Amino acid sequence: MKHNFGAGPGILPHEVLKQAAAAVVDFGGIGLSILEISHRSPEFESVLDEAVKLVKELFSVPEGYSVLFLQGGASTQFALAPYNLLPEGGKAAYLETGVWANKALKEAKFFGDVEIVASSKDKNFTYIPKDYKIPADAAYFHITSNNTIYGTQLQQFPKSPVPMVCDMSSDIFSRKIDVADFGLIYAGAQKNMGPAGVTLVIVKDSLLGKTGRKIPAMFNYQVQVEGGSMYNTPPVFAIYVSMLTLNWLKSKGGVEAIEKENIAKARVLYEEIDRNPLFKPVCEVEDRSHMNVCFVMENPELEKPFLKLCDDKGIVGIKGHRSVGGFRASIYNALPITSVYVLIDAMQEFAEKNK
Amino acid sequence: MKHNFGAGPGILPHEVLKQAAAAVVDFGGIGLSILEISHRSPEFESVLDEAVKLVKELFSVPEGYSVLFLQGGASTQFALAPYNLLPEGGKAAYLETGVWANKALKEAKFFGDVEIVASSKDKNFTYIPKDYKIPADAAYFHITSNNTIYGTQLQQFPKSPVPMVCDMSSDIFSRKIDVADFGLIYAGAQKNMGPAGVTLVIVKDSLLGKTGRKIPAMFNYQVQVEGGSMYNTPPVFAIYVSMLTLNWLKSKGGVEAIEKENIAKARVLYEEIDRNPLFKPVCEVEDRSHMNVCFVMENPELEKPFLKLCDDKGIVGIKGHRSVGGFRASIYNALPITSVYVLIDAMQEFAEKNK
Repeated sequence: MKHNFGAGPGILPHEVLKQAAAAVVDFGGIGLSILEISHRSPEFESVLDEAVKLVKELFSVPEGYSVLFLQGGASTQFALAPYNLLPEGGKAAYLETGVWANKALKEAKFFGDVEIVASSKDKNFTYIPKDYKIPADAAYFHITSNNTIYGTQLQQFPKSPVPMVCDMSSDIFSRKIDVADFGLIYAGAQKNMGPAGVTLVIVKDSLLGKTGRKIPAMFNYQVQVEGGSMYNTPPVFAIYVSMLTLNWLKSKGGVEAIEKENIAKARVLYEEIDRNPLFKPVCEVEDRSHMNVCFVMENPELEKPFLKLCDDKGIVGIKGHRSVGGFRASIYNALPITSVYVLIDAMQEFAEKNK
Repeated sequence: MKHNFGAGPGILPHEVLKQAAAAVVDFGGIGLSILEISHRSPEFESVLDEAVKLVKELFSVPEGYSVLFLQGGASTQFALAPYNLLPEGGKAAYLETGVWANKALKEAKFFGDVEIVASSKDKNFTYIPKDYKIPADAAYFHITSNNTIYGTQLQQFPKSPVPMVCDMSSDIFSRKIDVADFGLIYAGAQKNMGPAGVTLVIVKDSLLGKTGRKIPAMFNYQVQVEGGSMYNTPPVFAIYVSMLTLNWLKSKGGVEAIEKENIAKARVLYEEIDRNPLFKPVCEVEDRSHMNVCFVMENPELEKPFLKLCDDKGIVGIKGHRSVGGFRASIYNALPITSVYVLIDAMQEFAEKNK
């Protein structure tokens, strides 16, 4: 058995994988694969409806917001957010908390002015800046809720005088949020929500159509809202697996229940990192992510032998990103706490051997 | 057993579905699902490499062309083609052979001038215009090789004085083409190549970077070429299933072999339509598609009973598009000729009953 700590595309619930595999052969007993049915079939339309309903239910999405399932990943949304929300000659404000935030703000520059209200680049993004002023004349304020590479997370969302846009790719559905705090939320599915190939967008309808900019159909949130995510053929299978995963989350007790589990998983792992003499944490304590736990070794020469031990124990995907080094244990929703304990045991065993 | 004549997402080979389902549970014996592995893993990188290699092999792609697997469907390419190839203040030429060609040219208008060199709108797109002049000052000439809705197909490609851009969504890999005739080929996968959620792009490198336009990363073919379709997380599973489908095609003898089969399937079905007193064809004989066979009834009141008979025989997906009515039998690569004979038998049985 593998313990999948990969940063993404990440672990999915075992039950979901079993259901998905069955549907690839025969979807719901109709004698056809989910891969070869029309997206306009009643069978798929109810999958999409159910997926939208689950998003609304799990996040208590208020009236006046639309839920979309699009393609292209968060990287496409880096461009679509300003394309749709930043008026010609306008300005957008960004919080720079890592490489992804940086990529997002670079795309905004194609569409208008960008003000970086604060950055943690000075310390390789190991903390979340807190003292900054969000300009009231900005079209929106963009944040990245969780920084996969560095293992930091906004534990509290700022109060913003302008609509807040949030890239939640790596912590969507891992904790309670108030959707009303945001103008736009987007997330690539492949960490907590489903497989690669679909992107969730939750957008406040009243913000749309105000840029004065002409937008090609596929890049236009209004067109996608009107088409109910079916302006063209949607990524049928990725939406289906996302629906299954959201349904699994609901059956586990929803976001509130999974948040408790995620906090428990993160706590025991950070405790071990803080306690174990061979390892040390990377980020500011108060900004530690509950999704991606980054840590390095006091003695980097021990990295390879530790990775070898992990491999022997079926622990996969914990090599850190090259820009941080060391290790990164991604503990997404579908990762059971038992896998975290397997990792902790390995860390303790390794420390014992290398006293 | 079902006989899947659906227009798309369409039928996939049975062997491919079985392999895909197995990989959703355990990919190649690594103890992880194809849905939960990193796109940077050696396992997935070899899938992508293999998919690119198969495209090059099956189409004998010459040097100087790049093969990309992107997201967003052909509808996104409607915008990306002019975004990347149409200079500021330039003009693009389009052949209007249906709704999709029309959508493509509408997107081009966001980026420059559009000249419609010819249109078959006058006869509800039931033929392919042939007498037209492609302007030599256009940046490119755009065609749609097969028109899914109307059942027409360009049986010969025009000689163009400017780079030719072709939407091959509904007949890609169904027949031999000379890639060197084109500057850009694109196709949503979900008819002949794989599941919904991935789009093939074959682009001539020397055409890129010449518009003088700044292009956001995800919309920029050059960025995608440099990133090897991995600028961001690609649609892992859709690429995997496409690779399996291309591999299946290769094992069948490649494009040349499947083209013969497709012609045989089309011929017997058109023969029945021409012969059977209850049915009549829709399109000009010389422009008939080998992929989507459209036909209507002399007496429309018999449509429902015929659909009922088809349903009883496991024939699915043959209802015609609302803008044409009647029936559309899509006979993509993966549809065996035996299914075509089941349909022909049903047509004959129905004619016998309704003499």
